[in-house]
Amino acid sequence: MTVYVRGIGLIPIRDHWDLSISDLAEKAAKMALEDANLKDVDYIVVSNMSSQHLNMAGNLALPVKDRLGLNAKPITTESACGSGGIGINIGYRLIKSGAKNILVIGVEKLTDKVTEEVTTSMMMAEDRFFTGISGSSFISLNALALRHYLNRFQVEHEDIMLLPVLDHKNASTAKHAQFRYEITLDKVKKSPLVADPLHLLECSGTGDGAAALILSSEKGDVKILSSQIATDTFRISEREDPLVLNGTVKAARDAYVYSGISPGDVNIIEIHDAFSITGILSLEDLGFAEKGEGVKLLKDGKLELNGDLPANTFGGLKARGHPVGATGVYQVAEITLQLRGEAGKNQVENAKIGLAQNIGAIASSTAVTILSKNS
Amino acid sequence: MTVYVRGIGLIPIRDHWDLSISDLAEKAAKMALEDANLKDVDYIVVSNMSSQHLNMAGNLALPVKDRLGLNAKPITTESACGSGGIGINIGYRLIKSGAKNILVIGVEKLTDKVTEEVTTSMMMAEDRFFTGISGSSFISLNALALRHYLNRFQVEHEDIMLLPVLDHKNASTAKHAQFRYEITLDKVKKSPLVADPLHLLECSGTGDGAAALILSSEKGDVKILSSQIATDTFRISEREDPLVLNGTVKAARDAYVYSGISPGDVNIIEIHDAFSITGILSLEDLGFAEKGEGVKLLKDGKLELNGDLPANTFGGLKARGHPVGATGVYQVAEITLQLRGEAGKNQVENAKIGLAQNIGAIASSTAVTILSKNS
Repeated sequence: MTVYVRGIGLIPIRDHWDLSISDLAEKAAKMALEDANLKDVDYIVVSNMSSQHLNMAGNLALPVKDRLGLNAKPITTESACGSGGIGINIGYRLIKSGAKNILVIGVEKLTDKVTEEVTTSMMMAEDRFFTGISGSSFISLNALALRHYLNRFQVEHEDIMLLPVLDHKNASTAKHAQFRYEITLDKVKKSPLVADPLHLLECSGTGDGAAALILSSEKGDVKILSSQIATDTFRISEREDPLVLNGTVKAARDAYVYSGISPGDVNIIEIHDAFSITGILSLEDLGFAEKGEGVKLLKDGKLELNGDLPANTFGGLKARGHPVGATGVYQVAEITLQLRGEAGKNQVENAKIGLAQNIGAIASSTAVTILSKNS
Repeated sequence: MTVYVRGIGLIPIRDHWDLSISDLAEKAAKMALEDANLKDVDYIVVSNMSSQHLNMAGNLALPVKDRLGLNAKPITTESACGSGGIGINIGYRLIKSGAKNILVIGVEKLTDKVTEEVTTSMMMAEDRFFTGISGSSFISLNALALRHYLNRFQVEHEDIMLLPVLDHKNASTAKHAQFRYEITLDKVKKSPLVADPLHLLECSGTGDGAAALILSSEKGDVKILSSQIATDTFRISEREDPLVLNGTVKAARDAYVYSGISPGDVNIIEIHDAFSITGILSLEDLGFAEKGEGVKLLKDGKLELNGDLPANTFGGLKARGHPVGATGVYQVAEITLQLRGEAGKNQVENAKIGLAQNIGAIASSTAVTILSKNS
């Protein structure tokens, strides 16, 4: 059973003071249903991380169903920043199990509470009662990874900073992106240290957003060649090597094997750069660069829109935005736009095969989705 | 592809002050893996309602995976009190999509915070920002349903109270039950009013628990004939008739159709009696009694262990306990014990077909699972 992407919906990421979490989900879902020209689906899968803690709301699939007058069966799923990719995997498996159309919604509203609460919520992505007790935040853990990387490899920190520069360049022309302006390398270097050595402009921001997909057994323009999930040890301190995202390595390997695609066949990628260092590790662990050599792709311009391997074509997590549980769904919707040739100013020429990598926590789970134009 | 229950694990429900939410999940999962004689599974599905709000923990499938040394793909799902049934449905569909073994865990730890926080959390099961703003709690909504039922039908309130009496009788000999003692009708009547007309002993209590199942494509003693989910309007105030659990009606109808079973074929049932009234409505909407006549089954003794249709054979939500997101998994594990003939003092003779009904909120979602002895 082949799984197709039959419809997409994505709303601009920003502070949506006037919209509740259900409003956000409803808007994106409505767009996707209209895009697919569908009135109902078999299941709604809602991916979200923090609604209980930040929005005091649960059971998210239910209100969406009522507002859109659907008769669909509801599933709400959580896996930190990787919720979206896992929601897509559930939808993909539901089609494989005989369902016809699945609505997958990723939604997150981070602006209902103060920043400290967002920081607390993010720490639930790791083992808060073990790792958190040391005083670590999700940001400081990533800062340690960056420090470790700089110590081990002969890499200049400023070369890593080329990733947010690229992201902002792509986001500057992307309608749904949160930060629609270019930034210079100098600006990244001079931005405040959030957790040494991580600078503010190396970190994704806080925003509200929702994206939706209709996955279908009915033939469409874009098909999912493979959707795979894999995991790594939950506590980063217990990993053999904290600079290898094992979940990403395994999910990518499985996705390549099941789709019959190799990294060299991929035309376009969306990588999970919640932090600059996460993006670099991802490039390497997805098989696009040797360990310690991820920045070469950036320095050689290969990841630019007109390069060999355009990355984060609407700005990635840093500049399109990172509404946590929604991010994985944004990524696949964006690749769909590219494969359909509907990416506007951000269009990559001759894009045929795209890969999205969405990670939960520091890749304790990774979802890799490989899509192709259905020619 | 037939889906079998290959292993079960259930731990006693009580205040587990010495166990974290991950400890609880791990314990039940380990029992189920041992029971199935399995070292690993394809997916772990963890069903839970309130971990973010009450336990400040998320991403629940990850720590379980690490503690048990599994390589399984993680899914965490939430649908209020119906989380367990929906987790089972996800597992069932994953097997249908080609997976071999799925570990489904239901877990809830309600005792980490004060009761007011539990009440707040429970209200997230309904539309908290609409219904909750009226001052309604989850208990008061059910009290209104009871009032409405007593007004509409010629039913004595004390006949409805026979359900908690039956539950406690069954729980008195059930090792994993929370309230292992009998109660009299008089005691129910004299128990304090929690929300008029609902008395304390008509309401399920607060407890911690975890149950686990191994669903498998490999032939086992017990098979799942059908797992179905259906929904009703999220806000109870917007339903045409608040005394009909439409989600239950639809899920049961689908489950009967797909399994080729009629209500008369069912030997044993687990119904979702979070409140006495919910149990009575469930009996009716599952097709075991006409509307307004659910109590007849109780008065005639049909629901007793030696009756025609033994119900809640280990005590149901009222007396076995209702660790919210875990409840649906307990129910199916209990039916499995009965069909295997391993129910000890609670054994129903010649049990061949069992039905479990697990609802989320006031049945805005319902999961119905029909199981049979594989003879």
